[in-house]
Amino acid sequence: MYINVLIEKLGKEKVSQQTDDLIRHSYDESPHSAVLPEVVCYPNSSEDVQLIVEVARDYHIPITPFGTGSGLEGQAIPVENGISMNFSRMNQVIEFSPDDMTITVQPGVTRFQLNDVIREQGLQFPVDPGVNATIGGMVATNASGTTAVRYGAMKDQLLDLEVVLADGRIIHTGTKAKKSSSGYLMTNLFAGSEGTLGIITEITLKLHGIPEYTVMARCTFASMETCAIAAKEILLQTIPIKRMELMDAASIAEVNRQNVYSFPVAHSLFFEFAGSVHGVEADVQLTAKIVKTLGAKHWTVATDPVEQEELWKARYNLSYAFQHTDGIDEVGADVCVPLSQLPKLVTYARQLIDNSGLTGGVWGHVGDGNFHTLVLFDPAVIGEREKAEATNEALATLAIDVGGTCTGEHGVGIGKRKYQQKEHGTALEVMHQIKQLLDPSNILNPGKIFIE
Amino acid sequence: MYINVLIEKLGKEKVSQQTDDLIRHSYDESPHSAVLPEVVCYPNSSEDVQLIVEVARDYHIPITPFGTGSGLEGQAIPVENGISMNFSRMNQVIEFSPDDMTITVQPGVTRFQLNDVIREQGLQFPVDPGVNATIGGMVATNASGTTAVRYGAMKDQLLDLEVVLADGRIIHTGTKAKKSSSGYLMTNLFAGSEGTLGIITEITLKLHGIPEYTVMARCTFASMETCAIAAKEILLQTIPIKRMELMDAASIAEVNRQNVYSFPVAHSLFFEFAGSVHGVEADVQLTAKIVKTLGAKHWTVATDPVEQEELWKARYNLSYAFQHTDGIDEVGADVCVPLSQLPKLVTYARQLIDNSGLTGGVWGHVGDGNFHTLVLFDPAVIGEREKAEATNEALATLAIDVGGTCTGEHGVGIGKRKYQQKEHGTALEVMHQIKQLLDPSNILNPGKIFIE
Repeated sequence: MYINVLIEKLGKEKVSQQTDDLIRHSYDESPHSAVLPEVVCYPNSSEDVQLIVEVARDYHIPITPFGTGSGLEGQAIPVENGISMNFSRMNQVIEFSPDDMTITVQPGVTRFQLNDVIREQGLQFPVDPGVNATIGGMVATNASGTTAVRYGAMKDQLLDLEVVLADGRIIHTGTKAKKSSSGYLMTNLFAGSEGTLGIITEITLKLHGIPEYTVMARCTFASMETCAIAAKEILLQTIPIKRMELMDAASIAEVNRQNVYSFPVAHSLFFEFAGSVHGVEADVQLTAKIVKTLGAKHWTVATDPVEQEELWKARYNLSYAFQHTDGIDEVGADVCVPLSQLPKLVTYARQLIDNSGLTGGVWGHVGDGNFHTLVLFDPAVIGEREKAEATNEALATLAIDVGGTCTGEHGVGIGKRKYQQKEHGTALEVMHQIKQLLDPSNILNPGKIFIE
Repeated sequence: MYINVLIEKLGKEKVSQQTDDLIRHSYDESPHSAVLPEVVCYPNSSEDVQLIVEVARDYHIPITPFGTGSGLEGQAIPVENGISMNFSRMNQVIEFSPDDMTITVQPGVTRFQLNDVIREQGLQFPVDPGVNATIGGMVATNASGTTAVRYGAMKDQLLDLEVVLADGRIIHTGTKAKKSSSGYLMTNLFAGSEGTLGIITEITLKLHGIPEYTVMARCTFASMETCAIAAKEILLQTIPIKRMELMDAASIAEVNRQNVYSFPVAHSLFFEFAGSVHGVEADVQLTAKIVKTLGAKHWTVATDPVEQEELWKARYNLSYAFQHTDGIDEVGADVCVPLSQLPKLVTYARQLIDNSGLTGGVWGHVGDGNFHTLVLFDPAVIGEREKAEATNEALATLAIDVGGTCTGEHGVGIGKRKYQQKEHGTALEVMHQIKQLLDPSNILNPGKIFIE
């Protein structure tokens, strides 16, 4: 049986069938149902990955890559069982080149680990999805987060990927040069493909300098619409904002309640400015002028790191604020729309939740037009889950209708498959053709992106 | 015969067999040999393109897209004859949305035309390859130029492409949202594919604000190596430089000679800073400090537009300086390497040219590690062409060996095909598989990228 072959080829210590291991690889942070893998493999190298892929190919066994399990769409859930491939032992920096402002890492390196390595050279890797995900997982889902407004998403940081294909071939999709017009630009075909086209085994990233000066700020507005308008005006002024986050009043109230804070319960914008001292000071002044003209209240600025921590606390504590009620489940949206549609959509999202009678919040990375909802429901109460899911569905559908996408940063995984046809139309056929070309036996993360 | 079918389907006015038309579509600005198409088509719409593709498919006729013919690698030369598809009548803005900072255009819109449309809203499209190319051509070659150090290349500006595939299907590769993790990220598979995977018929671009304040500067260094080191130091300081251009002493001398200028004949760096007044002033000061510490001479700063024009004149006049000698041909390299390799490679490039005994210059977009050589030769003198081409070959090969690429911005076209195997290895097989998947009859720009 294929597990014996895996043990024979890789050695016992890289192959686990222990129940606790199988359970740990059966779920991620999404609400999707857990599914157990038959075996967990712990490759040490690209060659190990190649061996595993060859066994999987020969025995027709699905492989599901697993980083830290922090995904929000079930990408790491082995829905057709088989092999869960855990990258925690592929966590080495292969080459750090401060002079090139690049680094090549294995996929199991986490972003905290990465920043610890590069910080002393005055460099940062700014993509920040909140959790301490692996770089491999972040590439595979084209993750982004709070800093994308300035630095872009994962796809914008990539110079080269080493990928093991379903047939065992190993390729490099790019070079270590900052630009290239040579051959097809395949890097971003694999980025965001959620392990369905190949297994990423090495990643070369662009790095960024650490700005000399940082200022944080916060303000509130009477309506969600004004928050979105303010965000748009700030971008139109070409202020190189580093972070610009929206939290609606309900989210602030929830964070206050959970943490015994007393932040003003109002729709809020959070800002981070970074650059040279003079540049940042000019940016902060201009931003203050814009938001005050639009009627902002509670404009507060922090330059000291301790004050900054305090100022952004409500935002920092947001991610888990809604999730810590026993017995309560939640569903969330991750839509991204053209900026001009944002005022309408965040207002609509708030109304949808209010009309459902359920508790929930709206927040997001408004500089990108990307926002989230989280709606809580009691699975024991008949009809609550359906109501919560209906808000998601209405929002995803409307986002696509106004020219946007059903997922700005979480990826398709399991939950967004149903929107792919509506969003991509004929292009979905082409995506499926490419999938069939590169993985004809459908062994690479089956059950994700496509509804077979 | 297929030309009659084209006339029947499109109407006479969109199909030309006039000799002057055929000749005009037989060459571009590269040194590659002219080849006549059999017919030139002038589509008005995506539907026209679809009709042409369907005829080409049915009769197995090659299609070569043609923008303005400003390409430098023969991408627009119809090497297997057939149809040249000219986009000059598809030059409409489809949707300009200043609030979204996006615009959707047909591929025949030129970048000057685009900037004329968006300028009055305080917006710019900054990608600047020098010539007034079409946006379609710029997407198809993943063009970039002087501003890529700040804004990236064409691939970094794209939200969505409409593409007509070889089988006649029309797809959209993205949405109008600024970010997406939905489905495969196919936009950059078509960007840079030089019309070999599909015909691009609509392009949605990100736009950028026009910075409030611009300063230009120039300085000289005793060695090419110090120029490259200075460029690297400036980037490591996270100065958001807009342009940073290198010209070697020979290029300055040639520009002086052609134009009767008297710029200091020394290896020179040209800078453009743009942003808020205070931010730019801080950036200029820090840059001055860095270059002076490294021994720069002739540091000159211009804030007034007329002075700025004067200051950058040598760089502006560079592109054509070497090309205006009757009876003299030239070949040029377009390599891009990791920044740490740049000092070595620009020095090596200069030596190569000197050792060849020919005249030539070295310059480039040093913030990206992308630089060019131009070597002049007299085709009437036996052996000169070979010597000139040998410098190109040595440089492209070394660039690949140090982890870079044979083409940073001009594309593969005809001349860089021979380096694809060395640069991409097994990945070239995958590129070829994708080509066969999407264009099994090889009717889309055959003879480019791949050596069949």
